[in-house]
Amino acid sequence: MVGAGQLARMTYQASIPLGVRFRVLADTAADSAARVCPDVQVGDYHNLDDLLAFAAGCDVVTFDHEHVPGEHLAALSAAGVQLAPGPAALRYTQDKLAMREELTRLGVACPRFAAVSSAAEVTAFAAEAGWPVVLKAVSGGYDGRGVWVCDDAVAAGEVLAHGIALLAEEYVPFRAELAALVARSPHRQGAAYPVVETVQRDGVCHEVLAPAPGLSATVAEDAQRLALLIADALGVTGLLAVELFEAGGGLLVNELAMRPHNSGHWTIEGSRTSQFEQHLRAVLDLPLGAPQPAAGQTVMVNVFGAHDPDLYDKYVHVMALDPGVKVHIYGKAVRPGRKIGHVTVTGSGAGQENLLALRDRALRAASYLATGKERGE
Amino acid sequence: MVGAGQLARMTYQASIPLGVRFRVLADTAADSAARVCPDVQVGDYHNLDDLLAFAAGCDVVTFDHEHVPGEHLAALSAAGVQLAPGPAALRYTQDKLAMREELTRLGVACPRFAAVSSAAEVTAFAAEAGWPVVLKAVSGGYDGRGVWVCDDAVAAGEVLAHGIALLAEEYVPFRAELAALVARSPHRQGAAYPVVETVQRDGVCHEVLAPAPGLSATVAEDAQRLALLIADALGVTGLLAVELFEAGGGLLVNELAMRPHNSGHWTIEGSRTSQFEQHLRAVLDLPLGAPQPAAGQTVMVNVFGAHDPDLYDKYVHVMALDPGVKVHIYGKAVRPGRKIGHVTVTGSGAGQENLLALRDRALRAASYLATGKERGE
Repeated sequence: MVGAGQLARMTYQASIPLGVRFRVLADTAADSAARVCPDVQVGDYHNLDDLLAFAAGCDVVTFDHEHVPGEHLAALSAAGVQLAPGPAALRYTQDKLAMREELTRLGVACPRFAAVSSAAEVTAFAAEAGWPVVLKAVSGGYDGRGVWVCDDAVAAGEVLAHGIALLAEEYVPFRAELAALVARSPHRQGAAYPVVETVQRDGVCHEVLAPAPGLSATVAEDAQRLALLIADALGVTGLLAVELFEAGGGLLVNELAMRPHNSGHWTIEGSRTSQFEQHLRAVLDLPLGAPQPAAGQTVMVNVFGAHDPDLYDKYVHVMALDPGVKVHIYGKAVRPGRKIGHVTVTGSGAGQENLLALRDRALRAASYLATGKERGE
Repeated sequence: MVGAGQLARMTYQASIPLGVRFRVLADTAADSAARVCPDVQVGDYHNLDDLLAFAAGCDVVTFDHEHVPGEHLAALSAAGVQLAPGPAALRYTQDKLAMREELTRLGVACPRFAAVSSAAEVTAFAAEAGWPVVLKAVSGGYDGRGVWVCDDAVAAGEVLAHGIALLAEEYVPFRAELAALVARSPHRQGAAYPVVETVQRDGVCHEVLAPAPGLSATVAEDAQRLALLIADALGVTGLLAVELFEAGGGLLVNELAMRPHNSGHWTIEGSRTSQFEQHLRAVLDLPLGAPQPAAGQTVMVNVFGAHDPDLYDKYVHVMALDPGVKVHIYGKAVRPGRKIGHVTVTGSGAGQENLLALRDRALRAASYLATGKERGE
């Protein structure tokens, strides 16, 4: 796996019971996955020689992020390296304009969009779509980075001044943000997880509620079908996470990711097959695992670093407070705002009351881990 | 963790989300846990220098087996190494006579027993307890090794001829073999898992049914209370597995283990807290995790090596046949009869019919993995 962040770390965990040999390409030996996996190569994924050296001896190479330059992916592929997902599919995670155009060609509903390179073009777009306008970096954004919600032409002008390729998108007033996670294997087997609701702040996922509360069965099935259709049409191998807006009774595709995804961390405890095992099974062309839920409801909450670099004391209190909370520590240095772990709570029941209780437990644990305080203190 | 077998491998897995640094002392770099953990010291647990070198820099040392010589445990402890469990507790896993005497002193029911060193003593024991007589090595046995069921004095004589210290025990015609798994922390916090039934062949565990089917709530609670009492009385830190015979409406203690135990592998998927995480939490004096079941019923079946050293082809078929089976491969060379993995199946329902279906799925998968054939073919 290229990249040694927490996604690689959790994928490595899943590789152990499968008996799969696993190697990571890490920026440094202190990376999250490099701390736990014995087979680490330290190198730069921007450097083709490092990538080729890393890939030597691997049956298949997969990714914990979408930042390997497209020309390197093509070169690796040309050198006979088996990439999963392949360069043709990955292109749609690296070029949001190409993604929007391809999805539109496939008849998949997306927010209105246009490539923009001047204030005049943004203003022309806003005349049709209205303000605010969402400007997105065509390449390289993630976790809210590379996304700007602009209320007017002045704000848009500031973003344009960065001088990067931009896409303008209509601002969608959504009922909920959803994620549909599916896997697809080279044999074209597909598996769809229950659709979840993601609760975001400033474009960053904070909570995941599985299954999405209050979602009609019809819309949930539509979302699963849509994600399987996109995985098949784009030729994805491995996981595909489709981030969706539920708005006006319909679904609009927001983003795509072709790797384990924050919206799927709940599957470690909450599904028969975790997303990490599923990704490995898919990229190795093994039969896919059952994506069925293992619990009535599951809530996952991210833990973001605060100012205290020592998690240990707080972690003891979280465990004492709630023996049912599952704590996942990523082994990363604590920096304010950085994702350093997550917590998951599962419940056997269903219904709004049960969900509120699970959310309360998970939010309390995550807040305590990060800050040493419960919510609202 | 001293020892790098599958118990250490699965404990290592559990250490990753906890963010706990983990080192193993392995016989060879090819040991099950040594293949997956980056911090491996190769050494001999019979050698005190190797043990001391291993322990340097560890906050606490625990064990995946009970074979470290007692004098080395004492020496490590004297050198300031924190052992969990400690030497006083471990003694009862290394000396079955001491264990029987201590449990009897505590008022815990055991099969009738006597230390024996001659045919005359065995015959005298049999005159009271009846044939067959179970002869056990006082030290060093596991997985059916060091246990002989003798039908008569001739058979007993053959065992006596080995010249090892022996214990004679009454042969118990049991309704079921049960296991009660508990954890105890240095803070004296205790946690008890649901009592399970183990299905053994030739003294080796083949299947674990969780919770034990057909067990009365009263007997189940008795077993849990008994295990917590023993853990406390013997001063156990970490897990304690108490193997029990259910016979004549009561419970008799068969064996003790103070480490993760084969009878607890089902907890990886079947409980909110796996036994491996629980052992780490206990030995690190962290608050214990919830031992509640995460599924209505869980069945675990061991996979024993057959003649084909290549698991890969068969593993693909098992996954294709049953996407809900969880496969755990230990990364050990396949040898006939050797435990090389296990499979687990969970079901949300309860009842006899559901259990039969789960057992059928698990037995089929385990048989196929081992032999490439379904049961009975």
